[in-house]
Amino acid sequence: MSGLGRRADRPGTRDPKAHICSLLHISFGTKSPLQRDVLVACVVGAWVENLLIILVVEDEQLLQSIVEESLTDGGFETVIASSGENAVELLDASEGKFRALVTDINLGSGKIDGWNVAQHAREIDANFPIVYMSGKDADDWASKGVPNSIMLAKPFAPAQLVTAVSQLLNASPPAAPTA
Amino acid sequence: MSGLGRRADRPGTRDPKAHICSLLHISFGTKSPLQRDVLVACVVGAWVENLLIILVVEDEQLLQSIVEESLTDGGFETVIASSGENAVELLDASEGKFRALVTDINLGSGKIDGWNVAQHAREIDANFPIVYMSGKDADDWASKGVPNSIMLAKPFAPAQLVTAVSQLLNASPPAAPTA
Amino acid sequence: MSGLGRRADRPGTRDPKAHICSLLHISFGTKSPLQRDVLVACVVGAWVENLLIILVVEDEQLLQSIVEESLTDGGFETVIASSGENAVELLDASEGKFRALVTDINLGSGKIDGWNVAQHAREIDANFPIVYMSGKDADDWASKGVPNSIMLAKPFAPAQLVTAVSQLLNASPPAAPTA
Amino acid sequence: MSGLGRRADRPGTRDPKAHICSLLHISFGTKSPLQRDVLVACVVGAWVENLLIILVVEDEQLLQSIVEESLTDGGFETVIASSGENAVELLDASEGKFRALVTDINLGSGKIDGWNVAQHAREIDANFPIVYMSGKDADDWASKGVPNSIMLAKPFAPAQLVTAVSQLLNASPPAAPTA
Amino acid sequence: MSGLGRRADRPGTRDPKAHICSLLHISFGTKSPLQRDVLVACVVGAWVENLLIILVVEDEQLLQSIVEESLTDGGFETVIASSGENAVELLDASEGKFRALVTDINLGSGKIDGWNVAQHAREIDANFPIVYMSGKDADDWASKGVPNSIMLAKPFAPAQLVTAVSQLLNASPPAAPTA
Amino acid sequence: MSGLGRRADRPGTRDPKAHICSLLHISFGTKSPLQRDVLVACVVGAWVENLLIILVVEDEQLLQSIVEESLTDGGFETVIASSGENAVELLDASEGKFRALVTDINLGSGKIDGWNVAQHAREIDANFPIVYMSGKDADDWASKGVPNSIMLAKPFAPAQLVTAVSQLLNASPPAAPTA
Repeated sequence: MSGLGRRADRPGTRDPKAHICSLLHISFGTKSPLQRDVLVACVVGAWVENLLIILVVEDEQLLQSIVEESLTDGGFETVIASSGENAVELLDASEGKFRALVTDINLGSGKIDGWNVAQHAREIDANFPIVYMSGKDADDWASKGVPNSIMLAKPFAPAQLVTAVSQLLNASPPAAPTA
Repeated sequence: MSGLGRRADRPGTRDPKAHICSLLHISFGTKSPLQRDVLVACVVGAWVENLLIILVVEDEQLLQSIVEESLTDGGFETVIASSGENAVELLDASEGKFRALVTDINLGSGKIDGWNVAQHAREIDANFPIVYMSGKDADDWASKGVPNSIMLAKPFAPAQLVTAVSQLLNASPPAAPTA
Repeated sequence: MSGLGRRADRPGTRDPKAHICSLLHISFGTKSPLQRDVLVACVVGAWVENLLIILVVEDEQLLQSIVEESLTDGGFETVIASSGENAVELLDASEGKFRALVTDINLGSGKIDGWNVAQHAREIDANFPIVYMSGKDADDWASKGVPNSIMLAKPFAPAQLVTAVSQLLNASPPAAPTA
Repeated sequence: MSGLGRRADRPGTRDPKAHICSLLHISFGTKSPLQRDVLVACVVGAWVENLLIILVVEDEQLLQSIVEESLTDGGFETVIASSGENAVELLDASEGKFRALVTDINLGSGKIDGWNVAQHAREIDANFPIVYMSGKDADDWASKGVPNSIMLAKPFAPAQLVTAVSQLLNASPPAAPTA
Repeated sequence: MSGLGRRADRPGTRDPKAHICSLLHISFGTKSPLQRDVLVACVVGAWVENLLIILVVEDEQLLQSIVEESLTDGGFETVIASSGENAVELLDASEGKFRALVTDINLGSGKIDGWNVAQHAREIDANFPIVYMSGKDADDWASKGVPNSIMLAKPFAPAQLVTAVSQLLNASPPAAPTA
Repeated sequence: MSGLGRRADRPGTRDPKAHICSLLHISFGTKSPLQRDVLVACVVGAWVENLLIILVVEDEQLLQSIVEESLTDGGFETVIASSGENAVELLDASEGKFRALVTDINLGSGKIDGWNVAQHAREIDANFPIVYMSGKDADDWASKGVPNSIMLAKPFAPAQLVTAVSQLLNASPPAAPTA
């Protein structure tokens, strides 16, 4: 089920471009530069202004799809970045379109890990909801995590992820209304 | 799935009148006075004593059904009022049967808005769980909302609504057991 | 959907013995001593090391299956004990394999009630997440419950149970990673 | 400094009997039955209706006086019981006059320890603020403490005690006004 | 002791005008219009930019001085308004100079009560810390108070007041640094 | 007043060496290597095992003494480091003797700032209470602070500092009892 309270809930009014976005987003990390530009445009474009998008940063394809399925079941839209570098690029281009960040810690061969991505997101927006997912690095949350974030130690259940994102969004001060 | 731990969970014991209640409740706001009396009786009657009913106040039919579907998926029963006046009438007649209030702020042409409904509910029960839903009025929560309530700024995901209601119910001190 | 981030998520790698465990666990309370030994072995064995198992203590079969279904929908695995004595036995044998306890208070004819089981679980692990479910004993939570636990007063919705378990797990300090 | 907002704040209106109460209260535990009756009358009498009294349960005289001095510095009145038995007797006779309980765990030779006293206080009032003080028993708080209580592990600073009592009082739902 | 980390902490640098402000502030409510203009100038002037000022709204002189003494002991500066009208005037003129509001509910003969003052303060700043003090109106907090505020039911101890103000200030997101 | 519940509370039993420690600790940052060795020994020695010591990291002498006076008034002992390097050295040598960290962010000419010191403290003890104090860097707390810490934006009142330290200590799980 999709987000409540936006025009897209009305049957027939969903912008067809949204589907393009949906089709693209799983494989963001492996796209050509051209495709990535399309995706970034898709994410930040005016026509997605009213979507409830969670940025998911995960380099393992299996986990990408499980996380995405869990969040979609809860009614969230997801955009998936497969490296810290992709995530930072999306955050910089997003102009506040993302509502929360769900990030793995160890992100493969890149230099930017999940701790860095979360710090970057908080430099842009001091109240940005952050959920970390980790196995072996979960213990480092107390020293490397940001305040008011949640660490999900693997293994965790889909309900924990959806509850974590919902708790943080529900605790955030309501943003100024979009005109 | 329905609520846990009540007789109605047992196959075959669900009171047939409960189905009447179900059939009626979406269109409460547009009913004739007679139908409304039947509905109020339905809600507050002894035979629904053991249901877990959330009062939803929303004047847009599309949102009514989306909110109802989300809560029903979470295992809650809902009664929907389509105006602040209906909501106050139901709260006054309910004798503590409702377990939480989910209310929009701007309720069409009536004089009673969602802030008023929530205040009324808290005058009856100081611990009553309150969830507001709003777009353009979300910023007013800090000055017009009641303590220990949650504001869901539109757009929000169904999981946020279900988590908000659950968080507030789980934090409430347990009520005295029903005899 | 099963837990995220463990090997069993990968198609085809799920240990077949896990299915034996699944088949056994509903009827744990009524098994012969031999069957129970098999089940305990199942629960504590090395090959379930990476599962996300909730211990559910409930003596009514109908509630057992509803609770189990709710938690399974949320992505948790469950092991069900039908008496306080069974629960204590499982906790003692579990070597930290359970991630949370969901327990009814009144557990039939046994001498060990839900309050005792929760105390026992906390003596083993001071941070163990505890959710109580009760109807007539809910009021005793303030004097008999353990700190940082949640009491679900019956009737409650499945979403409340899943949210309660998720909230407590998400608030726990991350455990040391399993090697 | 004494409590704010009660008549006794007005110079010259403090009831002289309050001083009797003050003089008596440190040595409550060692008094004769007659003296104890006077003290109980003092505590529960109509003329102390408007005082802000904390019940302190501590069997060591040195700690009694340090705890009392800390709370008095914060503006609280204290009544000190030197055994669990005294404390239970005072709670039973107090008719809701005490506003919080500060209790040591190990209370000398009596059969009633601090865990028992706190449980008893919560059976009378489910929202009663409880602060435990302990050295070697602090680890048992997770299994033997009541919900929403605070354990102060010795050694602790006076400011921690005053903050603990204040936090719990400030979080309590306001009681109905006294007529 | 005064606030930490501002120039005024340095011996000899305290602006003499601050003393004028101190001398004036208790009797603000009874001053002539000219004196009130001086006081408003005093409060909002550039030279008090770095003070930590709490706005106290209380119409009883005895309570004014007790509240002021309690907060001063905790290291806060206070400005006292003796009516809701005065308080609103000061909030409107203050340009964010106040750090918190401590307000009685029933404010004598004026039309603006403490609930109104708090709402007004939150309309100006959605995160403004609010502490209410009340006797007979404390029960109305659940329906008339603003979110994330604290109600101190009279009688209360000075430590409760100081802790309440400190808790709310410590929980606030840090403001942008003053240039 | 000193900490409650330790032997040093008993008149005449205070170790005379504690006074040496007191005399030394303000000027730790400017001592010769020999003096610093004495101080480290003082801090970590067996005979201070039972003190309630807060590590304060502050490079401005005026603020050092104000912070120290505030904490001492609350009943805490303090050890003051005047650089990040000193603080790390003390944490490494302390063997868990410190109970909390209060640190400024900008620490003069050293390479180690308050964010680094706090991270180091949390690497040693994941539950270590952390209070930051800052003026111009307070906004960075959301991205550079550790979870469950408190940022005191300057100027702040002494009561805020004492309450912050007390809140964090009171929320910590009680440590294992010292033998």
